[in-house]
Amino acid sequence: MKIGFIGLGNMGAAMAANLLTAGHEVTAYNRSPEKVTALAAQGAHPAASIADACRGDIVVTMLANDTAVEAVTFGEGGILAALGEGATHVSSSTVSTALAQRLAHAHADAGQGFVAAPVFGRPEAAAAAKLFVVAAGAPTAITAVTPVFDAIGQRTFVLGDQPQAANLVKISGNFLIASVIESLGEAMALVSKAGVDKQQYLELLTSTLFDAPVYRTYGGLLAREEFSPAGFAATLGLKDVKLALGAGEELEVPLPVASLLRDRFLTLLATGGSELDWSAVGALSAWEAGAEHPAQNV
Amino acid sequence: MKIGFIGLGNMGAAMAANLLTAGHEVTAYNRSPEKVTALAAQGAHPAASIADACRGDIVVTMLANDTAVEAVTFGEGGILAALGEGATHVSSSTVSTALAQRLAHAHADAGQGFVAAPVFGRPEAAAAAKLFVVAAGAPTAITAVTPVFDAIGQRTFVLGDQPQAANLVKISGNFLIASVIESLGEAMALVSKAGVDKQQYLELLTSTLFDAPVYRTYGGLLAREEFSPAGFAATLGLKDVKLALGAGEELEVPLPVASLLRDRFLTLLATGGSELDWSAVGALSAWEAGAEHPAQNV
Amino acid sequence: MKIGFIGLGNMGAAMAANLLTAGHEVTAYNRSPEKVTALAAQGAHPAASIADACRGDIVVTMLANDTAVEAVTFGEGGILAALGEGATHVSSSTVSTALAQRLAHAHADAGQGFVAAPVFGRPEAAAAAKLFVVAAGAPTAITAVTPVFDAIGQRTFVLGDQPQAANLVKISGNFLIASVIESLGEAMALVSKAGVDKQQYLELLTSTLFDAPVYRTYGGLLAREEFSPAGFAATLGLKDVKLALGAGEELEVPLPVASLLRDRFLTLLATGGSELDWSAVGALSAWEAGAEHPAQNV
Amino acid sequence: MKIGFIGLGNMGAAMAANLLTAGHEVTAYNRSPEKVTALAAQGAHPAASIADACRGDIVVTMLANDTAVEAVTFGEGGILAALGEGATHVSSSTVSTALAQRLAHAHADAGQGFVAAPVFGRPEAAAAAKLFVVAAGAPTAITAVTPVFDAIGQRTFVLGDQPQAANLVKISGNFLIASVIESLGEAMALVSKAGVDKQQYLELLTSTLFDAPVYRTYGGLLAREEFSPAGFAATLGLKDVKLALGAGEELEVPLPVASLLRDRFLTLLATGGSELDWSAVGALSAWEAGAEHPAQNV
Repeated sequence: MKIGFIGLGNMGAAMAANLLTAGHEVTAYNRSPEKVTALAAQGAHPAASIADACRGDIVVTMLANDTAVEAVTFGEGGILAALGEGATHVSSSTVSTALAQRLAHAHADAGQGFVAAPVFGRPEAAAAAKLFVVAAGAPTAITAVTPVFDAIGQRTFVLGDQPQAANLVKISGNFLIASVIESLGEAMALVSKAGVDKQQYLELLTSTLFDAPVYRTYGGLLAREEFSPAGFAATLGLKDVKLALGAGEELEVPLPVASLLRDRFLTLLATGGSELDWSAVGALSAWEAGAEHPAQNV
Repeated sequence: MKIGFIGLGNMGAAMAANLLTAGHEVTAYNRSPEKVTALAAQGAHPAASIADACRGDIVVTMLANDTAVEAVTFGEGGILAALGEGATHVSSSTVSTALAQRLAHAHADAGQGFVAAPVFGRPEAAAAAKLFVVAAGAPTAITAVTPVFDAIGQRTFVLGDQPQAANLVKISGNFLIASVIESLGEAMALVSKAGVDKQQYLELLTSTLFDAPVYRTYGGLLAREEFSPAGFAATLGLKDVKLALGAGEELEVPLPVASLLRDRFLTLLATGGSELDWSAVGALSAWEAGAEHPAQNV
Repeated sequence: MKIGFIGLGNMGAAMAANLLTAGHEVTAYNRSPEKVTALAAQGAHPAASIADACRGDIVVTMLANDTAVEAVTFGEGGILAALGEGATHVSSSTVSTALAQRLAHAHADAGQGFVAAPVFGRPEAAAAAKLFVVAAGAPTAITAVTPVFDAIGQRTFVLGDQPQAANLVKISGNFLIASVIESLGEAMALVSKAGVDKQQYLELLTSTLFDAPVYRTYGGLLAREEFSPAGFAATLGLKDVKLALGAGEELEVPLPVASLLRDRFLTLLATGGSELDWSAVGALSAWEAGAEHPAQNV
Repeated sequence: MKIGFIGLGNMGAAMAANLLTAGHEVTAYNRSPEKVTALAAQGAHPAASIADACRGDIVVTMLANDTAVEAVTFGEGGILAALGEGATHVSSSTVSTALAQRLAHAHADAGQGFVAAPVFGRPEAAAAAKLFVVAAGAPTAITAVTPVFDAIGQRTFVLGDQPQAANLVKISGNFLIASVIESLGEAMALVSKAGVDKQQYLELLTSTLFDAPVYRTYGGLLAREEFSPAGFAATLGLKDVKLALGAGEELEVPLPVASLLRDRFLTLLATGGSELDWSAVGALSAWEAGAEHPAQNV
């Protein structure tokens, strides 16, 4: 299929490369063009403008936040103006449920399809085409874009025809990851101050009730205090926790652990950790218990 | 081996039964004698007193809290007085690290062995001999009591020669379970208020990053709102969170998620939920978001 | 002086009336015109449009939130377009520091003055001209509008030439009030469950270390469980706590008590209390401790 | 009257001196005898033992915690054994409600009177005989010891005949002070990071809604960052917050602000602040926002 791809960060570049691998014709756009050049070397057509990336059946966006998605979609020469009738916008960025609703309405009014399809997985999983895709949108649109999901992920979950449900689930999933980071950070601060080895502790946890990727991945980063370079930056972690809190405000659901995480991320940012991986919030408990600050060890 | 067993609650009765199954000679004691009668039908010798249960090589205690363990150990006619020199007390109860230290010293002074060996697993796992045992104590004592661990569990983790380390790890593990209950409860309150089905949501989580027993077990209880009868009562959940907070005070480690959980358990108890399973604390987020109180559905 | 007044809610109507009492010529505008009629009976000129209220030396706005202030200022026929060169906009609404900065720049570019002048005090204090005014802006602008402050308040605090500083102080002040409501609510839940009389308890507090209006006012509402009609609605309380959290995000300052309050307000709204006074969040501790929900007593 | 006084710390020494000033005959005991010598210079009789201090009509205890009060009361040669029938024990220490109940029963069984009479005020207030006394106990006992209250305080509040009610009110009062420290610390971290002067900010607060001693005293310490020497040590602050949490557990009342404070005090202790005044917990918000740790400035 002819697929446009907008946003070639850590995640997007790997996803676009897998679309090429799967045999699709990919036209790629990125704000800073050197990322486009790198992908062109793998067979992509470079796009000179957003509109250039909108000439196929599908355009995928994988951008940092609401503001970026709004700009490329609603801005002059943006997706909404350039995408053909009947073509579909697949939004894989982690954005607010409010924006998802706005995008769904705007694309429907323009006779275009819209599917929200955020993904779970870190850059390594994106590179290995092992992402989990959480998709929601009109059934026909979902069917039309399934080849994209097959190329980038190991499994797709379809959540119904309301796109924002996919974003809400993605947001809540990132919140759950962050809550594991926090609680594991507290537990490790506790046992390690008593002399228990963090790696051995983690092995015990992940051999028993906590035998899940989220504990192995983030527990490993915490046990090794490996917060740099960032696979997923602390600033993005704060953004995602704020998306969860924002969804909670809209739905009137208090989220005390998310509130705690918001304060943790602010602390990390204010004390020199803005460049660290978001898992570094899990090291703040040990810092408060007298250990070094995670930004100290970099 | 000749093994005494004190404390035949949900967990203890199943563990003692598995000792019988493994061919050990078990003498069992319980404060309320009807539990002893039930186990005697499976081949155990009934003990008329605590001292009666202390005549073998090993005595295992599986009791509700510090007070109960203190009473059977240090009380008149208790384990300390009755246990033979060279015999070993295996304490599988979830107790404070302070008590573990006191027990270790007292038994050492009396020429007796002491091993802290708390277990992970709910009553179903205990019945299936699938517990995880976390053990710490002098190497010779550990070796001596290994047949007990083989009979009751699927795997044993040995944490060194300081018994209280095993208790700290157990306490921190229960804290981590409770933190999963809380964060999952918040996430489910959020997505379900937006119309996402809780069972489908859980399936998505446990098929991806959260593929671990703790999410399947407690997520299932939360999704089905199945809080009664209690596999592990809310009052015990509060006790364990307080043990974590107590260990944090001793070691000077702040534990904000544990603090939140303490307040959650108190809320559950004060609003009619003291008989519910401890997973019901995860339903308080939905209650605060306008849904029914978990005690309402029983 | 010739003064326009926009926004005749509980607070604004009382402030405008005091401007009349002080001898000023007031032209008043309100979205729903019946409030204007009431004030006209006290001597004000009714304004048919926002622009009508902008023909004097000063226009005061006292509106519910950022959105309302943005609309009347930047909208078509709004203050920015209608206000004469050299005239001054006094913004007394509790708005975000970001909006205050935007207003300051826009008015400066238009050759108009701008003073942020939020006020402390409930409607009774506004009616009695006993407000406290917290003002910031260019010294000449402050001097020009001082007659307004003299007419509505008992004392004015000038904080410098950066208007947003006044908004930040106002926001932080409302946060401090809300934190008194929360902590007093917790303390009253505790002592009253033990049988201590709440009124007697409050008298003891306010006779000793806590002898301040904030304790007398809010403590009285809590002790009498008098949450309706609302002097300051729970929805506005949530708005103000979110302003504090937003300022904290901009400045990278974690605010755990504000985070707790956000969750409290969401709980109050989600459980039927959206029409209550914001002091009702202080009754949620007692609710969690087994007492009735504050919306039950209305 | 003939009054024994046990416990000559910062507070107790000043209280005992005021009993002398008021003309009472005071026999004083302290674990470390140099404090007794200092008071003897003001006219007190030195007591060689606890029993020596129990030969009058009244014995007042002013000690650090439950353990100390238990030791001097129930220990060998303690108050319970030494105090005459009909004489009264006035307990002014901040202790748990559980201990207050135990003391009340024990003294009643021994035919002795018991009054719980904790006090509000820092050492300066104690020296000036300006304490607030919160008393509870049998009316006859209260009447008997009123001369003590008159000598040490500016006002006495009698709360009924259940001694533990006085302790609960004292505990809740200290919790309220700590909650002021925390919320004021958060607000000051916020406004000062934006450039607002903390002293000017405090003056604004204490001139308006927050015109109370608690804001002036603790706000002043926070604004001046004056945490050493400690008027009331951080370790005592933690003790008092734990008393509040303990009372909340007994009564099943969740106290989220107290939970936050517990974690704050642990952080302060674990990061080098154990010698600081308890108001230093209010500086942790600024520390988390990037400022220096309060122990850095000493």
